[in-house]
Amino acid sequence: MAEAPPFATAASKAAAEAGTVLAPRFDADGLVTAVVTAVEGGDVLMVAHMNAEALRLTIETGIAHYWSRSRGMLWRKGDTSGSLQHVAEMRVDCDQDAVWIKVRVDGSGASCHTGRRTCFYRAVALGGAPAAEAALTFVEAEPLVDPETLYGR
Amino acid sequence: MAEAPPFATAASKAAAEAGTVLAPRFDADGLVTAVVTAVEGGDVLMVAHMNAEALRLTIETGIAHYWSRSRGMLWRKGDTSGSLQHVAEMRVDCDQDAVWIKVRVDGSGASCHTGRRTCFYRAVALGGAPAAEAALTFVEAEPLVDPETLYGR
Repeated sequence: MAEAPPFATAASKAAAEAGTVLAPRFDADGLVTAVVTAVEGGDVLMVAHMNAEALRLTIETGIAHYWSRSRGMLWRKGDTSGSLQHVAEMRVDCDQDAVWIKVRVDGSGASCHTGRRTCFYRAVALGGAPAAEAALTFVEAEPLVDPETLYGR
Repeated sequence: MAEAPPFATAASKAAAEAGTVLAPRFDADGLVTAVVTAVEGGDVLMVAHMNAEALRLTIETGIAHYWSRSRGMLWRKGDTSGSLQHVAEMRVDCDQDAVWIKVRVDGSGASCHTGRRTCFYRAVALGGAPAAEAALTFVEAEPLVDPETLYGR
């Protein structure tokens, strides 16, 4: 017998926005967007996706789980690298198709597969037409850890 | 004659991740994800999407533009409500399929269509299986402005 789906479905957009029932609005691929920020400093560390199982496990365990679209599998972030993400707070947005989690990161503290703390390590030049070259400036150039050490590649 | 596309295409994943060329990786719908945070306090205000034109206009003007998936149109946020978002900084993530913008918001300061400062106005209870009811707690209950005033609805 199949398990009951762990989440409710909102009766209406108004109910999803105004209520206290968690009724995630998964997209056609069964995913919600997850924005991950650091408890310390508040920087955005990464953007990822959760399916129902990843969301359930994140809520139950307090450790961030995602759905890897590239690998097509459930993914407890940090299982390979040691940089587990402990969720201090989770919020859901108005129409419940995105969650925001604030995390503390174990190990090296790197959340990016490049070994950097954040995936958002480059700033975009603003003002004027987008530059063809050199539009990006490294804000966080140095990895915290060598990705070859983390992942053996 | 068609305009040249304003953005480069990365030669490889490695080039996209390590380089200084802005080469957004638009998805099958032609969109990148945009995470929007407040300059003051750093809270996540909303998650939205940009097509190439919205991204170009945001970079050129320093005012946030999005692609509305529900309305199928380009959208300069705040044109109706008065709450324009001024971009203080833009960053791009490792594989360039998401941008993070830090904004200052005009007018009422509301970025959510419910009239609240942030779309993420409810926290999700953590620890234990997802609750069927009352899983959400209002963190920011009161709108800054009545949405009926903003949008006449």
